[in-house]
Amino acid sequence: MQLTAPLDMHLHLRDGEMLENIAKSSASTFSGAIIMPNLVPPVSSKEEVIAYKERIMAAIGDEKFTPYMTLFFKPSYDKAFLESVKEVITAIKLYPAGITTNSEGGVSGFDVEELRPALEAMSELNIPLCVHGETNGFVMDREAEFVSIYERLATAFPKLKIIMEHITTKESVEALDKFENLYATITLHHLIITLDDVAGGMLKPHLFCKPIAKRPEDRSALLKVALEAHPKVMFGSDSAPHPKHAKESCGCAAGVFTAPIALQVLAELFENEKAPLENLQAFISGNAQKIYGVTPVSKTVTLEKKAFTVPSDYNGVVPMYADETLAYSIKEVRE
Amino acid sequence: MQLTAPLDMHLHLRDGEMLENIAKSSASTFSGAIIMPNLVPPVSSKEEVIAYKERIMAAIGDEKFTPYMTLFFKPSYDKAFLESVKEVITAIKLYPAGITTNSEGGVSGFDVEELRPALEAMSELNIPLCVHGETNGFVMDREAEFVSIYERLATAFPKLKIIMEHITTKESVEALDKFENLYATITLHHLIITLDDVAGGMLKPHLFCKPIAKRPEDRSALLKVALEAHPKVMFGSDSAPHPKHAKESCGCAAGVFTAPIALQVLAELFENEKAPLENLQAFISGNAQKIYGVTPVSKTVTLEKKAFTVPSDYNGVVPMYADETLAYSIKEVRE
Repeated sequence: MQLTAPLDMHLHLRDGEMLENIAKSSASTFSGAIIMPNLVPPVSSKEEVIAYKERIMAAIGDEKFTPYMTLFFKPSYDKAFLESVKEVITAIKLYPAGITTNSEGGVSGFDVEELRPALEAMSELNIPLCVHGETNGFVMDREAEFVSIYERLATAFPKLKIIMEHITTKESVEALDKFENLYATITLHHLIITLDDVAGGMLKPHLFCKPIAKRPEDRSALLKVALEAHPKVMFGSDSAPHPKHAKESCGCAAGVFTAPIALQVLAELFENEKAPLENLQAFISGNAQKIYGVTPVSKTVTLEKKAFTVPSDYNGVVPMYADETLAYSIKEVRE
Repeated sequence: MQLTAPLDMHLHLRDGEMLENIAKSSASTFSGAIIMPNLVPPVSSKEEVIAYKERIMAAIGDEKFTPYMTLFFKPSYDKAFLESVKEVITAIKLYPAGITTNSEGGVSGFDVEELRPALEAMSELNIPLCVHGETNGFVMDREAEFVSIYERLATAFPKLKIIMEHITTKESVEALDKFENLYATITLHHLIITLDDVAGGMLKPHLFCKPIAKRPEDRSALLKVALEAHPKVMFGSDSAPHPKHAKESCGCAAGVFTAPIALQVLAELFENEKAPLENLQAFISGNAQKIYGVTPVSKTVTLEKKAFTVPSDYNGVVPMYADETLAYSIKEVRE
């Protein structure tokens, strides 16, 4: 099985030692990835974007891989600023304040008029808006409650490309077809797990993420649009490394680390569900190229049906499926 | 504030070293408790009940405390066996197979005719049936789905006292008033937390329990019947100690340890919610005395409004509210 130019349209590469430790997990098999800006402090100036990109390039070494950089959204961004920063970013990421790891400086309330100057400028400059769509409500309702905000933004800014990031609910899937300018990324883990896997048996901190995995009917809705390669849906791993001790502790951090195993698991999943390979190719790259208008560096990943036992950790980060055996291995990556 | 003869109608005392370590947490302030039988192997013979009770008595030393013993339900129990065991037990606990810690030998399927010999004998002998009411369904639906089984049992065995243990949903609260022979215990933690507290921010293994904490509207329904001391509702902590390492690990065990702080927190909760002290007295003792027909050993617990910082652990078991400060302290316990 061959996949060409895999893209991960939602990736956390972190910074410092963690960046050094995990960057190659993505760069070795993906052609590029949308890099999330929620560092401490968040990436919110042109200089910070450039400097972060340089640190990423240093960490990936000689791999051929494009980090598509993003900026942390602030309502204060004006057109002049956005024009100047446009050349170094691919999108801007909006976080509701306090909703996930390092999102304290995000948006509170979603007053369209307050957001209008920045969002209209982005619309005119054709900069996509990536959104972590959760309210501060009850954990199982947060994303469904946010759909009305997506609809408000999509209506108020009809030319703005809005990416509903890491969607987890049937409500978000339904919103895709209601508004021309709404798109979505879906993670690997939300195609596979529900809350049952996180908290239905023993509590599994390594499957704890935000948004939290939802109900079986939500997972089914996500799986359907992924397997059919719905043209508005892209793969975005939301692969989010935390050190082992921060996951297995008294207050475990949110995030699932899937970068090194995503392609192998997707290959198995699409095969098991009898979805054609071309759909996986569209989900993993083609749709994103069209939605974002990007042309990734060439890379061909050959997968073979050969058992692969996932390591217990990658440089101290525990991946999804640690110590379990997957059906597919990566045989070769050709640039 | 004085509470007399507090009873904990659902308690896990475990066995061996853990029993030694935590038995006094309950025995020092409660007059008695219903002791759950899910040891390994489960307590399922008269000899095992007697031997376990002796180990408990040894562990509590000179405290005045009655362990109300239970047997692990098996459909094979016949009337002759139940007659012989009746003198050493207060109730029998039914676990659906595999639903919680050490419940592998429990009931699969709830065929009334299969259960009839044992449950009719219990009904005739006036032995209450305590039930862990969860199906194997999706984690947020398991208890609500089980309500139809409660209703089937309550209808088929109208004279059998059925205690819906550690209820967590509005559906179970509603069932209380539909069937004369349905009763319920409610834990401390389910009066206080929802799934938001377990998984809405960081993941909190020490608040992970079975049944899992549910939605805000469920918590409100539980709180209402507790605060009004609904006559069919009793306090049962489901205090369930696990060693710290088993809670803070890759597959965390279910259970919240509340025994040493339950009375203090209940005092504060009832005060904050402006419920009369007599309701707390009924919830913590009076209702249980009537439902079970037990007369506890005398014990008067005096609480005072004085800050109490909860220890980080009690002999290696992390309690709810570890390192936090409660408004009430226990001033004196008089026998």
